[in-house]
Amino acid sequence: MSAPRGGPGCAVVVGTGLIGTSIALALRGRGTEVWLSDTDQAAARLAAELGAGQVLPPAGRPGGPADVAVLAVPPAAVARSLAAAQRQRLARCYTDVASVKERPLREAAELGCDLASFAGGHPMSGRERSGPAAARSDLFAGQPWVICPTGQTAASCVTTVTELARACGAQPVQLPAAEHDRWVALISHVPHLVAGAMAARLADAPRGALALAGPGLRDVTRIAAGDPSLWTEILAANATAVREILLGVARQLGAAADVLAAVAAGDDDAVKQLTALLEVSREGVARIPGKQGGPAPHYTIVQVVISDQPGELARLFAAAGAAGTNIEDVRIEHSPGLPVGVAELSVRPEAAEPLSAALAAGGWPVASPA
Amino acid sequence: MSAPRGGPGCAVVVGTGLIGTSIALALRGRGTEVWLSDTDQAAARLAAELGAGQVLPPAGRPGGPADVAVLAVPPAAVARSLAAAQRQRLARCYTDVASVKERPLREAAELGCDLASFAGGHPMSGRERSGPAAARSDLFAGQPWVICPTGQTAASCVTTVTELARACGAQPVQLPAAEHDRWVALISHVPHLVAGAMAARLADAPRGALALAGPGLRDVTRIAAGDPSLWTEILAANATAVREILLGVARQLGAAADVLAAVAAGDDDAVKQLTALLEVSREGVARIPGKQGGPAPHYTIVQVVISDQPGELARLFAAAGAAGTNIEDVRIEHSPGLPVGVAELSVRPEAAEPLSAALAAGGWPVASPA
Repeated sequence: MSAPRGGPGCAVVVGTGLIGTSIALALRGRGTEVWLSDTDQAAARLAAELGAGQVLPPAGRPGGPADVAVLAVPPAAVARSLAAAQRQRLARCYTDVASVKERPLREAAELGCDLASFAGGHPMSGRERSGPAAARSDLFAGQPWVICPTGQTAASCVTTVTELARACGAQPVQLPAAEHDRWVALISHVPHLVAGAMAARLADAPRGALALAGPGLRDVTRIAAGDPSLWTEILAANATAVREILLGVARQLGAAADVLAAVAAGDDDAVKQLTALLEVSREGVARIPGKQGGPAPHYTIVQVVISDQPGELARLFAAAGAAGTNIEDVRIEHSPGLPVGVAELSVRPEAAEPLSAALAAGGWPVASPA
Repeated sequence: MSAPRGGPGCAVVVGTGLIGTSIALALRGRGTEVWLSDTDQAAARLAAELGAGQVLPPAGRPGGPADVAVLAVPPAAVARSLAAAQRQRLARCYTDVASVKERPLREAAELGCDLASFAGGHPMSGRERSGPAAARSDLFAGQPWVICPTGQTAASCVTTVTELARACGAQPVQLPAAEHDRWVALISHVPHLVAGAMAARLADAPRGALALAGPGLRDVTRIAAGDPSLWTEILAANATAVREILLGVARQLGAAADVLAAVAAGDDDAVKQLTALLEVSREGVARIPGKQGGPAPHYTIVQVVISDQPGELARLFAAAGAAGTNIEDVRIEHSPGLPVGVAELSVRPEAAEPLSAALAAGGWPVASPA
């Protein structure tokens, strides 16, 4: 992955939550002049203290309109945030980061916003934690960033927003807003409701049963822990697309229930049907790109066999440090019953080969980077 | 957590997959004499090479019946495996590890097995990887291990199986087989089908949509990647209990779809109903014990603030090594945009306080263990 080039010289970030602050940090890392604004002034100040830029004065940027203003506010606030920003002439081009795209666009048109200077965006990155303190400048590195220009959007504005996404290390993907909304219904909004429907069964479950729960149940239900207010906004703004796919999932569960009834009644064909259902499901999982539950795709893993002794990791990290490599993340796999373990070192892709070579030369059993 | 005491002096493990080999490793670590058997002789030999015990000769254990035989075979094979083991007089007491308990018991009765010497078991542990090479002696440490004696089970056999579970570091929980089966339907079997119903929607989805998928979709669908043959066995053996709960989930999805239709039609009350549904879901998630997505519950995490430099981790691990602490796992949280990061060191609970104190004394900014 080569370093991003170009990008705006000057940006305003409206809304310094996780996404807004992460964009600001990424831009600051490239030397962009960044101004921060939030209805919660403490959030804007915290973002500024993290190095994400300067707090925007009430009168706007001292030097006049910025190259781009990023409206990093919840979906229902995008249109009025755009209208306010355009009234204030905050920037020459505007974008947002909301996870639905058609409805904010419709609302912006209704509010009389200038749609020539607006190209909506949706960086496909997030974390379970929220707020400016959870921000990371590399949140978008290597991840898709959907941009939804309309027929009215000026070409220069599409270019500016595309360069913004690249400046954050993301991969820009242009899509019509309607197609974006159908796709995120499938990959994000419906999964949220499906996880929620499973989680709802736990609300009055026996405590003893829940005490037996393992990581599988946690995985399936985890995203249903998301903020109900934000998710109401998202789902309401994409209700029709979400409903259609949701009914498909409900039909699939009904079919599984019918097959189970037949299985319980001793129908051997139904057992085969059950296997067939499970096979289709497994094929669906296999179609999701990326290593299941693996590291962020912008790191490469180097596996090293280590002995299960207190001093061993210190020696390994000293060797990696001597090779000039920064270890981004580490995972240790070992069984106390076995004399050896495996350290999985996450490093920048370009560092993987030199690190492997250095460790191998030092006598460490190293597997080649995948 | 104190070290386990007691446990069998001699055990046979029938089936050297992930669970069987992990039990064998745990028992070997305590000095128990362990004999290994598998229909796949290579699997039994590999388990033996990992230090899990000796391969059982065809004529059985040289010294006569073992204290306990663990039938670590798939659910549908438990009853005939028990019958064969009892014919061969492999042990004085028998248990299994299958994730359904009523049906194998019924099948064992039908095959004329001796039910006085059988107490079914279900260690609530697993990994996404399978086979003897994925085995870990600490797979069961701190985890529940359900034991389902019947009215016919001899008290001495219940005691033996309880001691076996404790010897593996697990927490024995006695439950009637029917209750176990209803509970695992809720926390394991239904989640598998719910994940599968979501995953099935992906089987013919546009590739471009899947390219936008994030960790949320992966989490929700991950367990649906499990082996369809094994899961057919499990679900078929527990069909009635699974079906009942599954219909509840399907009804919940139907209710969500109805609410979305009303939201799309502009019904403001429906928006409130949507929030209410999401809140019940969030309450359900919150009832699952244990840190969401966190480490295995038998480790304690020590958080240390570190600077983002190559030599820093080596210094940290050297300091931990000097304190005599074995680090079980490490996670680094940092943003390249920030000058500091956080290392999360997983250690045995009893090591957390001494490690924190040692690091603090050495000038490291350490957060107290939670």
